[in-house]
Amino acid sequence: MSIQQLIRTYQKRVDQQLQAKLSHSSIEPTLQEAMRYGLFNGGKRVRPVLVYLVNQLLDGRLEDADDAACAIECIHSYSLVHDDLPAMDDDDLRRGKPTCHIAFDEATAILAGDGLQSYAFELLSQSALAPQTRLDLIRTLAQAAGDRGMVAGQAFDLRHVGQSLTLEQLEAMHNRKTGALINAAIEMGYYSAPAASPDSLAALRRFGDAIGLAFQVKDDILDIEGDTETLGKPQGSDLEQNKPTYPALLGLTGAKEKLAELHQEARSIAQSFGPKGSDLALLADYIVNRDH
Amino acid sequence: MSIQQLIRTYQKRVDQQLQAKLSHSSIEPTLQEAMRYGLFNGGKRVRPVLVYLVNQLLDGRLEDADDAACAIECIHSYSLVHDDLPAMDDDDLRRGKPTCHIAFDEATAILAGDGLQSYAFELLSQSALAPQTRLDLIRTLAQAAGDRGMVAGQAFDLRHVGQSLTLEQLEAMHNRKTGALINAAIEMGYYSAPAASPDSLAALRRFGDAIGLAFQVKDDILDIEGDTETLGKPQGSDLEQNKPTYPALLGLTGAKEKLAELHQEARSIAQSFGPKGSDLALLADYIVNRDH
Repeated sequence: MSIQQLIRTYQKRVDQQLQAKLSHSSIEPTLQEAMRYGLFNGGKRVRPVLVYLVNQLLDGRLEDADDAACAIECIHSYSLVHDDLPAMDDDDLRRGKPTCHIAFDEATAILAGDGLQSYAFELLSQSALAPQTRLDLIRTLAQAAGDRGMVAGQAFDLRHVGQSLTLEQLEAMHNRKTGALINAAIEMGYYSAPAASPDSLAALRRFGDAIGLAFQVKDDILDIEGDTETLGKPQGSDLEQNKPTYPALLGLTGAKEKLAELHQEARSIAQSFGPKGSDLALLADYIVNRDH
Repeated sequence: MSIQQLIRTYQKRVDQQLQAKLSHSSIEPTLQEAMRYGLFNGGKRVRPVLVYLVNQLLDGRLEDADDAACAIECIHSYSLVHDDLPAMDDDDLRRGKPTCHIAFDEATAILAGDGLQSYAFELLSQSALAPQTRLDLIRTLAQAAGDRGMVAGQAFDLRHVGQSLTLEQLEAMHNRKTGALINAAIEMGYYSAPAASPDSLAALRRFGDAIGLAFQVKDDILDIEGDTETLGKPQGSDLEQNKPTYPALLGLTGAKEKLAELHQEARSIAQSFGPKGSDLALLADYIVNRDH
């Protein structure tokens, strides 16, 4: 199976899982509709795909990775819904569709995000995995999402719009804003494979650091070179908003060199897992070569 | 010890625990300041007090209840920070102090609320309790906070401002908006006492339903009869905003009768626990007789 086919298989799998799990009823159907709207927004499902890939790399059972895959996508989706709010990035469009607070209203978008976060932890607490595994998954996800992880990255980003950052600051920001959840996806894939050797975790973490950063550098490059229609957001919007980016700090050529380095690093870690690591290596290729 | 003294003891205990736990560092000190601002807002700590009271009623160890007490207060505080936002209730003051988005800014308040929610689950996942107990605590809190609990109650409330509700709808709303977390506090107290008999849980749940509703009926009455300064918010604000309340539906006398019934029901359940239930009965008295 090509990596594109494998990614599509996993994307479909997590979508089906989320559809089935989120079908419970509530006195607030509108709220749940907004949660589903935030979840099914045409996202690439990079984090769930990573959970599944690592689970398979470590000889896990795919069904043991479903709750982790769904939970991490709930957290990622909630963060996008809140990020798009007028008080935050104030975005009306995401992947070419109205953002949640435009399609519904601001209050509903805030509450839908809040509900998605709670739901992520509810899901993990109730999975069929061993109790200690469930706790490892919950701890990993909560730490990555919280005030030393993703949320800190968002706050740092918002406070520095229009300001110049050092490369160190930019990296510290992205390590939290995107890197924390990318790494959590990898760790959660590891925990979902109970027979995995603890030695593999350190290597997987380094892989996560490399592709997390590569993902962001690539995003910054796409903002300059990408096509507005393919991106689903206006090309050049980072530049226009004077956001700190890798190309702004390193130049476009420097950013591309940085991306190539990170790509190479990720590839060589993936290859250290032998033939089984080839899907991870292909995922690194996919992240670096994508056009949106 | 009088119930007032006991409540003060538990209030102080949870405050000290929260202070100690929230002292970790982050690249975003402002975000963490906002989280602490939302947490240390002069709240009555009703939910942590309930966790401790039930823990003691069931012969638990207080130290086993600390993480549950802190986690539920993090969830409650996050919900207040988000509730006060301009897109939600748009409140500038809470207990006489500027609300979080006034003291900081909207984006910081949104992120601080998000971070408090993550932190609640992080805390519970890392506590020293048995793995299954931690999972019971996480599941209970996540369900109570989520889209069939507190968040559904908030959404329902916002959608019905200025509309008349039936008594059934008003109760369904409060059961979620406030009742869900009150009941979660009681269940979490139960889970923090590992030797507790499962039989006690059903009675405790009925106690939770009664005082949860009593708490809300009392709030509605205080809005009419309370003193602006003692309340920390303008007296009569529910009436002015045409919010559905018990006095609006039942008349002030009817609301007071309802409160007396719920009080009596809570008292008799508390007494069914024998002499050890007296603190719970006194807490019911406190909720019904408070002036703010």
